[in-house]
Amino acid sequence: MQKSKLFITSLALFAVIVSFGQLSAQTGSRRKHLDIDLLILGGTVVTMDQDRNIIGDGAIAIKDGKILGIGKAADMRGQPAKRTINAAGKVIIPGLINTHTHIPMTLFRGIADDLDLQDWLTRFIFPAEAKNVNEVFVRAGTRLGLAEMVRGGTTTYCDMYYFEDAIADETKKAGVRGVLGETVIDFPVPDNKTFSAGLEYTERFIRKWQNDPLIVPAVAPHSPYTVSQEHLLEARGLSDRTKAPLIIHLAEAKTETEFIAQKYAGQRPVEFVEKIGFFNNRTIAAHVVHANDADLDLLKKHDVGVAHCPQSNMKLAAGAAPVPAMLEKGLRVGLGTDGAASNNDLDLWEEIDTAAKLHKLITGDPKVLSAPEAFAMATIGGARALHMEKEIGSIESGKRADIVIVDMDSLHQTPMYNVYSHLVYTTKAADVRTVVINGRIIMLNRRLLTLDENGIKRDASAYRTKIIQSLSK
Amino acid sequence: MQKSKLFITSLALFAVIVSFGQLSAQTGSRRKHLDIDLLILGGTVVTMDQDRNIIGDGAIAIKDGKILGIGKAADMRGQPAKRTINAAGKVIIPGLINTHTHIPMTLFRGIADDLDLQDWLTRFIFPAEAKNVNEVFVRAGTRLGLAEMVRGGTTTYCDMYYFEDAIADETKKAGVRGVLGETVIDFPVPDNKTFSAGLEYTERFIRKWQNDPLIVPAVAPHSPYTVSQEHLLEARGLSDRTKAPLIIHLAEAKTETEFIAQKYAGQRPVEFVEKIGFFNNRTIAAHVVHANDADLDLLKKHDVGVAHCPQSNMKLAAGAAPVPAMLEKGLRVGLGTDGAASNNDLDLWEEIDTAAKLHKLITGDPKVLSAPEAFAMATIGGARALHMEKEIGSIESGKRADIVIVDMDSLHQTPMYNVYSHLVYTTKAADVRTVVINGRIIMLNRRLLTLDENGIKRDASAYRTKIIQSLSK
Repeated sequence: MQKSKLFITSLALFAVIVSFGQLSAQTGSRRKHLDIDLLILGGTVVTMDQDRNIIGDGAIAIKDGKILGIGKAADMRGQPAKRTINAAGKVIIPGLINTHTHIPMTLFRGIADDLDLQDWLTRFIFPAEAKNVNEVFVRAGTRLGLAEMVRGGTTTYCDMYYFEDAIADETKKAGVRGVLGETVIDFPVPDNKTFSAGLEYTERFIRKWQNDPLIVPAVAPHSPYTVSQEHLLEARGLSDRTKAPLIIHLAEAKTETEFIAQKYAGQRPVEFVEKIGFFNNRTIAAHVVHANDADLDLLKKHDVGVAHCPQSNMKLAAGAAPVPAMLEKGLRVGLGTDGAASNNDLDLWEEIDTAAKLHKLITGDPKVLSAPEAFAMATIGGARALHMEKEIGSIESGKRADIVIVDMDSLHQTPMYNVYSHLVYTTKAADVRTVVINGRIIMLNRRLLTLDENGIKRDASAYRTKIIQSLSK
Repeated sequence: MQKSKLFITSLALFAVIVSFGQLSAQTGSRRKHLDIDLLILGGTVVTMDQDRNIIGDGAIAIKDGKILGIGKAADMRGQPAKRTINAAGKVIIPGLINTHTHIPMTLFRGIADDLDLQDWLTRFIFPAEAKNVNEVFVRAGTRLGLAEMVRGGTTTYCDMYYFEDAIADETKKAGVRGVLGETVIDFPVPDNKTFSAGLEYTERFIRKWQNDPLIVPAVAPHSPYTVSQEHLLEARGLSDRTKAPLIIHLAEAKTETEFIAQKYAGQRPVEFVEKIGFFNNRTIAAHVVHANDADLDLLKKHDVGVAHCPQSNMKLAAGAAPVPAMLEKGLRVGLGTDGAASNNDLDLWEEIDTAAKLHKLITGDPKVLSAPEAFAMATIGGARALHMEKEIGSIESGKRADIVIVDMDSLHQTPMYNVYSHLVYTTKAADVRTVVINGRIIMLNRRLLTLDENGIKRDASAYRTKIIQSLSK
């Protein structure tokens, strides 16, 4: 059983639903009327559809930002298309989804490590933020983070920071997909002096972006330990009125659990926010480390998405989220890098690899979180966590064309027996070759087409000097 | 204190012992008589010497395979040298040391994952080995592993497998440093049908290689659960007679602990091998996951080196070695990848990153295993684990010239505040640019000079087909 599975996934021997036939039937003369914007020809397509179909020597036709059809290359060779990418010998996957970031913090990457959370925040991050974060900073940090993520094959990310409107603007310009929320919190932040001002900013932000094809604006109350019960419910109210996603940090650290227990009659963080009626079915909760079985049932009841950030949780000694139990209950679980100030990069490949290994260690069971399950968390699982599984997360006809082409012939990937094994345990960000988002080519053969890499580095370098000076004053 | 340390290590402001002055005094006219074979000019030199000196705009002079002197580039510009490498803007580190591998198993990379150890071994690895491992296989797998390791900046590795003489030969030809031991074990293996035959092979192997500048031949009994008490002591005897290192797998899995307890009157693996007199002061123990405080004291007493393999131990659900306690006791601890069949690559950068994060999680203390400590485990710590700290592991005058030049300007490393933070938390194998081993350039600007990358991939691909066929029969 295991053996036959091994060779099937490795050799991609089986036939797969070819939707081109249906397409040509609908459109009459197939050669003339498909009107393909972009055709990806050849390569092994790892669809991540419900049946986990893998198509050897496959082809993907793209039109108007969407996937028009998927099938065998043999059926599509010679088909007219405005543009064709030859992916022979490569592996083609759905774009990776990073479900939790604070993207401009790339500019604080590695500014301080290996400290207690409170020390790290109060001695480094808060002073650095207070003295440096403005709209120009946020734009520079966002471009840096976008370029790093695209280079690693991330096509969608979910963010909460400040000046989120500037983040949305840079993200849109770069052609990247983002679920973006202005952090609202009960103390003054660089762009909003009060929680109410933050929520008003959020409402304007949502109205502005809510019909954008790339940007999904969100409501993002920081956490139950930094936002009052009343304000949490105001945030939920805004999410309900606008149908925007509701993002929150939840049950990350032991200190949070203790704080909530003390403030709210012994309740656990998940229990508390559920009891007050915070969750709606568009909620995305980051971390969820300190949650027991009853908490997971509450998350399931409200269809809450979870952004699992294994490396950040390890580095800050927060703990290991109960991911195998979450998956068993059918929760929506994706992977996130968290901000680069704490992690210290936005490399989702390392999160996939770490997640697969971490939960084997924690449960003592090497069968837990198999390679296909771990890879699913970074693609269709991430889409589910963001409540966007109808649009992204797999390569299927009708979905948005967020597609990544990966080299699979580097030394560390040689030889290849099983494509999922390699995607989880050996593929690196540097193996990503070409990135398509919403049908547009964003990186081609490792060259960024919408972001100016040298300019981004120059800006970051100038900020580095400024940030060091600001901290030494 | 922390803040000043941050900016000192980041800006490399402090002056460093410059040994060129002394050198020129000894040799008379400095311009004429240094006789440098290779001069590395510019860049930030992370020496990993006892004081952890970092030299900004540094220089390293190399002669006869050794480091002749280290200092500031300003003192060495224009100095005649047979060859000069410009490392301006780069970071220069001691070559990484991989303290535990089974190098030819690269050819089984990803052949089966996410299984119980026994299943994995008996259903995949043992059959695959029985049907495929011969000298030609071992040579092909060794070349593949060497190329992967060199690409990632590993200059020394410690290995135990079969046909180890062929491994030594390939390693020597590639110009890589290896501590290599033929696995001796109480059941028939591809090249030796009995333990005694294996030990005789080992003795011939040691005599042949013991004066080689690159290869350190070793005695390598597999483990206390696969080698009898009598044979363990025979192996130690050979190590004593030949002064060769003594390598063993020790206290890796819970099943081993249970087996040893049952067979040897409730003893723990470390306790048992110590009691029988197995340890000498050239011992290298791989894994050491299941060890209590008393066990660590025994390891310390005999100066045993430990090869910590965090990713392999996580993936096989073996557990987390008590590394912070080991380091506190002053044990010799290095990092290893284990074989690529279980890990699934030979990427030491990921082990460094994982080790730093894993032990924060396990201890619940984010201050544990700081970036400088984690990086030390991959360099001078690895050298200590292999009992070779007088020859390798740091950039110091008189030591072997095993030196790696790393790019530090990729997007995921931008901006840089602290060089140790970046080396541990953001640098990837793909950032390694140039590799020098024993004074010889093995990779220059990412081009392998002693290994034929395309030929290696062709051979691996041919073996892949053969291995799949052998398993499906």
